[in-house]
Amino acid sequence: MDLALYLTARTARIDRALDGFLPRASVKPVTIHKAMRYSLFAGGKRLRPVLTLAAAEACGGGLPQATPAACAVECIHTYSLIHDDLPCMDDDDLRRGRPTSHKVFGEGVAVLAGDGLLTIAFEILAQAAPTSRYSTAALIRELASASGSRWLIGGQVADLEGEGKKLTGPQLQYIHCCKTAALLTASIRLGAMSANATPARLAALTDFGQALGLAFQVIDDILDVTQTTEKLGKTAGKDVAATKATYPAIHGLDRSRKEAHRLTAAAHASLKPFGKNAATLRALADYLLARDY
Amino acid sequence: MDLALYLTARTARIDRALDGFLPRASVKPVTIHKAMRYSLFAGGKRLRPVLTLAAAEACGGGLPQATPAACAVECIHTYSLIHDDLPCMDDDDLRRGRPTSHKVFGEGVAVLAGDGLLTIAFEILAQAAPTSRYSTAALIRELASASGSRWLIGGQVADLEGEGKKLTGPQLQYIHCCKTAALLTASIRLGAMSANATPARLAALTDFGQALGLAFQVIDDILDVTQTTEKLGKTAGKDVAATKATYPAIHGLDRSRKEAHRLTAAAHASLKPFGKNAATLRALADYLLARDY
Repeated sequence: MDLALYLTARTARIDRALDGFLPRASVKPVTIHKAMRYSLFAGGKRLRPVLTLAAAEACGGGLPQATPAACAVECIHTYSLIHDDLPCMDDDDLRRGRPTSHKVFGEGVAVLAGDGLLTIAFEILAQAAPTSRYSTAALIRELASASGSRWLIGGQVADLEGEGKKLTGPQLQYIHCCKTAALLTASIRLGAMSANATPARLAALTDFGQALGLAFQVIDDILDVTQTTEKLGKTAGKDVAATKATYPAIHGLDRSRKEAHRLTAAAHASLKPFGKNAATLRALADYLLARDY
Repeated sequence: MDLALYLTARTARIDRALDGFLPRASVKPVTIHKAMRYSLFAGGKRLRPVLTLAAAEACGGGLPQATPAACAVECIHTYSLIHDDLPCMDDDDLRRGRPTSHKVFGEGVAVLAGDGLLTIAFEILAQAAPTSRYSTAALIRELASASGSRWLIGGQVADLEGEGKKLTGPQLQYIHCCKTAALLTASIRLGAMSANATPARLAALTDFGQALGLAFQVIDDILDVTQTTEKLGKTAGKDVAATKATYPAIHGLDRSRKEAHRLTAAAHASLKPFGKNAATLRALADYLLARDY
């Protein structure tokens, strides 16, 4: 398969759907809708919603059924970036090569734009059709749990509290599980649920998501150390400057790279039951690993 | 009926249910759950969830069915207070007589505690049972819309943008509709929906909520001007100090008081179809108006 073509087509579908779900920038009050759209349409890779759609396809589901879940996870991801970038959090000026929300709209509106995207994620997901195995309420619970205080938000709290401290390997693993793997896994699970996946397939895709999510975060940590600001589109070396714990800082670059490969192999192994139906998910896992780290 | 006894019983039920829905303060990461509980159990009046339960009862519904919706609206209300109090918004140090979240936990954790309460609101509401007329997804859409960028969040944006400006009556009305009336109305509607209310009854309670919500905000504006900091439990005269537009500032105290009475009469009129089933809702409306303004 041609992954580049696939990604272009899926990204375009997600962008169109998000554009339809979000209030126009002309809707009152204009500022909040401009700010929500500024961050949502900032050239993100749409990795999570692409995984949602690919997981649905691997389970024999249709794209229209999976689209609300795909858009909801992207809104959650974008809100978390806006809030993480705030001066009272990671204090970042650049994101995806552009000034962060609070730099453009001010801190107050940035907080509210994040709140707005978080809220609309559930409004969008509530439009997903139920299947015989999974109610729309079950999808809502899945997303709320993964993005709630035990996982996504909890990871950011642990991250904040870990700044300037020497974290152990398990502590860093906990932060990565919460901050990255939980939402990535939920993105995949929501796609599978929208396709009415059997419990066995849902469990296999959960394993896939957790391995992939950790791999993704380890690679991000490596890239932060090895790449330039220009190439990343965000301030490089930021984690080191903030004396944030990273995989390379704790385990060294070499072991980090090996760990990324090991996790990707585990992700591949979990896809075995799907046979050729998981060709796209496999290609996506390879694509993540093939980033230049 | 003895409203004081009723309020005590309902508030205790809501507090117990919230305590059960929220992760223990010992759940990792401890800080976020402490912060969420600090604001949620800060002695709030539980006005919105009490209205949810009373609306359900007026429609012949049971309290257990309405309890998830009641708890969800209280989580949304509390999150909005935490974020509104942030230094980048209204910059308030006191709330319900205690230091605000960011004063106790720092700004970063306060933003995240608000995010956590916003997220868990939907996790809780997703546990509400569907009725023949209203799916759980319909309840989710109701709450997400009322607390989203067009209403609750939109009102805060308009409020921020109006600071230091001379607002017109209609502009202030818009802010009050968004910031207060929308969530109050949704609280009432969610109670009615949990009781499988007929469309006609839902429409009547929508009118009730809008009138009551505006009356409530007008009275809050009046109290801010006329009461002392000690009695309010928050910084009094704050709106005037920030040259925020208020009903009394635009219309004068006398006209504001008349408007509060007029809105309460409208609220009462909308309850006519319910006969004596709405005795509690009537008593609650009177209770709001009877505040010493």
